[in-house]
Amino acid sequence: MYALNCWYVAAWERDIDADTLFAIRIADEPVVIYRRQDGALVALENRCRHRFAPLSLGCREGDDLRCMYHGFRFAPSGRCVEIPGETEIPELARVKAYPVVARHSWVWVWIGDPAQADPALIPPAVGLDDSRWVLRHGQLDYEAPYQLINDNLLDFSHLSFVHRSSFGAGMNFAYQRPRVTRLPRGVRVERWSVPRNVNVSLRISGAAEDNEVYSSYDFLVPGILLMFSGVYPRGTQQRLGDATPRMADAVSSNFTSQAVTPMTAETSRYLFSWGPNAGPEAGTQADAMYQVMLMAFGEDKAIIEAQHRTMRAGPHPAPLPTSADRAVLLFQRLMRTMSPGGAEAREA
Amino acid sequence: MYALNCWYVAAWERDIDADTLFAIRIADEPVVIYRRQDGALVALENRCRHRFAPLSLGCREGDDLRCMYHGFRFAPSGRCVEIPGETEIPELARVKAYPVVARHSWVWVWIGDPAQADPALIPPAVGLDDSRWVLRHGQLDYEAPYQLINDNLLDFSHLSFVHRSSFGAGMNFAYQRPRVTRLPRGVRVERWSVPRNVNVSLRISGAAEDNEVYSSYDFLVPGILLMFSGVYPRGTQQRLGDATPRMADAVSSNFTSQAVTPMTAETSRYLFSWGPNAGPEAGTQADAMYQVMLMAFGEDKAIIEAQHRTMRAGPHPAPLPTSADRAVLLFQRLMRTMSPGGAEAREA
Amino acid sequence: MYALNCWYVAAWERDIDADTLFAIRIADEPVVIYRRQDGALVALENRCRHRFAPLSLGCREGDDLRCMYHGFRFAPSGRCVEIPGETEIPELARVKAYPVVARHSWVWVWIGDPAQADPALIPPAVGLDDSRWVLRHGQLDYEAPYQLINDNLLDFSHLSFVHRSSFGAGMNFAYQRPRVTRLPRGVRVERWSVPRNVNVSLRISGAAEDNEVYSSYDFLVPGILLMFSGVYPRGTQQRLGDATPRMADAVSSNFTSQAVTPMTAETSRYLFSWGPNAGPEAGTQADAMYQVMLMAFGEDKAIIEAQHRTMRAGPHPAPLPTSADRAVLLFQRLMRTMSPGGAEAREA
Repeated sequence: MYALNCWYVAAWERDIDADTLFAIRIADEPVVIYRRQDGALVALENRCRHRFAPLSLGCREGDDLRCMYHGFRFAPSGRCVEIPGETEIPELARVKAYPVVARHSWVWVWIGDPAQADPALIPPAVGLDDSRWVLRHGQLDYEAPYQLINDNLLDFSHLSFVHRSSFGAGMNFAYQRPRVTRLPRGVRVERWSVPRNVNVSLRISGAAEDNEVYSSYDFLVPGILLMFSGVYPRGTQQRLGDATPRMADAVSSNFTSQAVTPMTAETSRYLFSWGPNAGPEAGTQADAMYQVMLMAFGEDKAIIEAQHRTMRAGPHPAPLPTSADRAVLLFQRLMRTMSPGGAEAREA
Repeated sequence: MYALNCWYVAAWERDIDADTLFAIRIADEPVVIYRRQDGALVALENRCRHRFAPLSLGCREGDDLRCMYHGFRFAPSGRCVEIPGETEIPELARVKAYPVVARHSWVWVWIGDPAQADPALIPPAVGLDDSRWVLRHGQLDYEAPYQLINDNLLDFSHLSFVHRSSFGAGMNFAYQRPRVTRLPRGVRVERWSVPRNVNVSLRISGAAEDNEVYSSYDFLVPGILLMFSGVYPRGTQQRLGDATPRMADAVSSNFTSQAVTPMTAETSRYLFSWGPNAGPEAGTQADAMYQVMLMAFGEDKAIIEAQHRTMRAGPHPAPLPTSADRAVLLFQRLMRTMSPGGAEAREA
Repeated sequence: MYALNCWYVAAWERDIDADTLFAIRIADEPVVIYRRQDGALVALENRCRHRFAPLSLGCREGDDLRCMYHGFRFAPSGRCVEIPGETEIPELARVKAYPVVARHSWVWVWIGDPAQADPALIPPAVGLDDSRWVLRHGQLDYEAPYQLINDNLLDFSHLSFVHRSSFGAGMNFAYQRPRVTRLPRGVRVERWSVPRNVNVSLRISGAAEDNEVYSSYDFLVPGILLMFSGVYPRGTQQRLGDATPRMADAVSSNFTSQAVTPMTAETSRYLFSWGPNAGPEAGTQADAMYQVMLMAFGEDKAIIEAQHRTMRAGPHPAPLPTSADRAVLLFQRLMRTMSPGGAEAREA
C-alpha cells in the first residue's frame, strides 16, 4: 500500500546525466528516467508496451527512447512514435509517463494521478548547493519496507539505544517526549536539549556545555525528513517559551534532508545529506559529521532489517505503541488516508 | 504449460558417456539419463519411488540403476527389481521410463504418452559429424521461461537492435517482413537479403557486396530452430521468384541447429551449433562464427532475462503484437493445441 | 507441524557463556537464550513486544534483557519491567518465557505448555564430561525438514549405501531387519552383527573378526538418538537370546548422542557427539571416529537435502514404505499424536 498523490525521491539529480537511462522501481512501478536534449527530465514506465523489455536497456534517440529489443520508439509523452516496419501505430502503443521535477538536488517523481501533480507540494528540502550549509550526501538500499524506516525516523527515542555509540546521544531522547504537531502533509517534532544529551556532531561543532540545543524536523509524505538543529545561548528556551527560535540567532547549527522511497513492498532506498552551517571550519566539520552519519545509518539498517526478518518469519501480534510513538501513529494515519481507498487518495 | 507429445532435447549426446548419470528437469519432470552396457540410452524418472532421493546420485549396476539411499534397484523399464531385504516387490514400486533417442548429436526425450513416441517426429537437425558442415557447438542456461526464448527466435526483427554490434545485422530485419509459412509441426521463415544487411559472419565467409543471401529456418515444436543461409549470385532471387534455391547452388553457406528446452516454468536450457559449409577455410570461419555467436547469444540472454524479471515483478497488460510477430503467434497457437487441454494434446 | 510438549535441544551448553545472547528458531518460534548473573539459563521469545526487534541484538542488564531498539526491558519471566519515559507498563507488554534446562551438555527448551515442562522427560543423553566415554562433538545445519533427518536415523538400512565408503558398513544393514520396540516416548532399535559388517570405527577400536557386536539405540521425541554399540565375545548373542547384554561385559564399546531440532519447516539443526569407552587409546580412537563421523554426516546431509529439493520441486506420490521403515512409521505415528490436534498434544 503506497500513498499515491505525492512526490517520491527517485535519485540524486547529479546521478542522471545526459547519457543516463536511470532505472528504479518506485512503489512497485518500473520507472526509467532520462534527460531530453535540452536537459529536461523525462520519467517513463520502464517496460516496453510490446513485450515488456525494460526501456532502460534501450537507446536515447533525440528526445525519445527506443526499446532495443524490437525497436519500438517512445516520445517523452509515453506515446509510441515508431514501430519498425509498421505504417500504423495502435493507440494502445504507449507507456505511462510520470510527472518528474528536479529540485533541491533530488529528482522527484509523481506516481499517482498526473493531473494532481503540483510541484508546490514538493517538500522544501535543502539542496547540496545551498550556500547556507556545507553538506555531505549519500544513500543506502534497505531490505525492509519503507514503513519501518519511516517509523524509525518518527521516534527518536531509538537514538539512546541504537545510536548510543555513534551519535553518542544521551538518555533524554528515550525519557523525554518531544513536542509533536500535525502538519497538513506530515508531522513536526521539536525538542530542546542540552549539548551533552544530543550528539557527538553537535559537540564537534563546538557547543559549550551550558548552551541549549533546539532541534526540529518536519516529516512529510511519503517519507521526507527535514531537520534543523541549532545551538543557542543559555536561557533561550525559557525566554521563548513555545515560540520557535530563529535560525539566524543560533550560535551554530546543522541541517539534514532525508528521503525514504519504497521500491517494492520489501525494499526501499534511503537518500540523505547532512552538514553544518557555512563557516571557516564547516568543511572539516561536515566530513566528521558524515563519518558519524554513515555509522549511525548502518546501525539503523541493521536493526530495521532484523526487525523486518523477524516480522516476516511468522505470525506476531500488533505492535504495542507507547507515548513515544505519537508521531509514528499520526503519520501512519495520514499515510492511510492518502493510500488507495483512503479519504485523501484521489485515485488516478 | 508444456507441449506433451514431442521430443525434447535433453543433452548433447557426447556429454553422456558410459559412466554418466545425467540429471535434468524437462518440462518440470525430473529425468536421469544413462547408458546400458550396450550403449543404448535409458531415461528414467529421477526420483526413487521409495523416499524420492534422486537416482542420479545412485549407481549403475549392469543395465539397472540403484538408488544409493536405501538400495532400491530399477530396471531400464522403470520397474523396481530389488528392494534389499524384501522378498516381495509391490507393483507400485516403479518409476516412469521415458522414450529416449540419440540422433543428430542430441539426446531426445519424450515426456508425453510413450505410445505416441514416434522417432520419425524428431526434427532433422544437423549433427556435429555431418560432413557437409564444419560446426561449433555450445549451450546456455536461462533464468527465463522457454516461451520467451522461442518468441525471440521466431521474430528476427530483434537482430537489428539486440545484435547490432555482434551480428552487425542491418536494419532490414526490422523493416522488412519475411515470408512465414505454417508447417505441420512448426513454421518456416524465409527471407532474401543483400550481404551488407545480414551479418558479420556471412561477410567472414566472403560474400561479395553484389551477392544475394537466402536464409530460411524451420521452427519446430517444442522449440527447435534449423536454419540454412546461402550466398547466391546476383539475380538469383528474381530468377527463382518464390521458388526455394538449392543448397548446392550456393556460393557459400552455413547451417545452425538450435534447441530450447523448458526445465521448469522459469528456467530453460538452450543448445546450439553453427558453422559454414565444408571447405579449405571452414575451420577458421567456424571459429570466427562461434565467437560471434557466443556474443550474440549473451545479448539475447541479457534482454530476455531482463524481460522476464520485468514481467514477473508485477501486473502488466497483454503483449501488443505487430506484423513482425506473425510467426510468433502462429507458433504459440500451435503449441497451445499440443499442450494439456489442447486439440492435439492426445494426453498420456 | 511440530510436537509441542517435549524438550528441544537448542545448543551445546558450552556455547552459551555469561555474555552470550544466543538466537535460534525452534519449531518456528524465535528464541533468545542467555544466562542470569547466577549462571541460570533464561529462554525468551526473541522478538520485542513493542515493534518486534530481536532481543538477541539487545543488552543484558542484571538478570534482564533490554531491547536496543527503543529500550523495553524484560525480566526472565518475560514481563516488561521498563519502558523508557512511561510510568505505566501495560499488561500486554511481555514476551513468552520458555522452560529451559541445561543437562547432558545440551540446552533443552520446552516450546509447548510450560505447566507440563517436566525435566524428568529430558532424554538421558550422555554429556561430554561423562567419565565412562571419551567424546568428540559437533553440529550441522540442514536445508531440509527435521522429519527427513529423523526418517534417516530411524532406518539404518541406508548405512549400506549412503555410508558405504565412510563407515564402511556391510550389506547386513540393508538385508537384515533389526528388532524394533515401541517405547513410551520413542522407539528402540537393536541388532547383533559381526564386526566386518558394522563399521570402520569399531574396527578402529580393535574388535576381532570373531567378535559379535550389539548395537541399540533409543530414538526419542522430538528427534533424540542415543546409541550404545558394544563388542562381545563370540557366543554372547546365542547365550543371551533376546536378553540385553550388559554394557560392562563389552570388550570395547562406544556411545553416540544425537539431536535433530527443527528450526523452521525447511531448516534444521543437528547436534552430535560420539566416542569410545574410556581407556588408554580412547583419545586417539575418538579422533579417528570423529573424522569418520564428519564424513558420514556430510553424506547424509547431501542425500537428504537432495531428497528435499526433489520433493519440493513438484507433486509426487506418497512414500512407499518397506519393512525397513517399521521404526520410521512407528515414530511418525507417535509424533502425530504429540502435534497440534493429536491425542497426546495437550496443547498450551
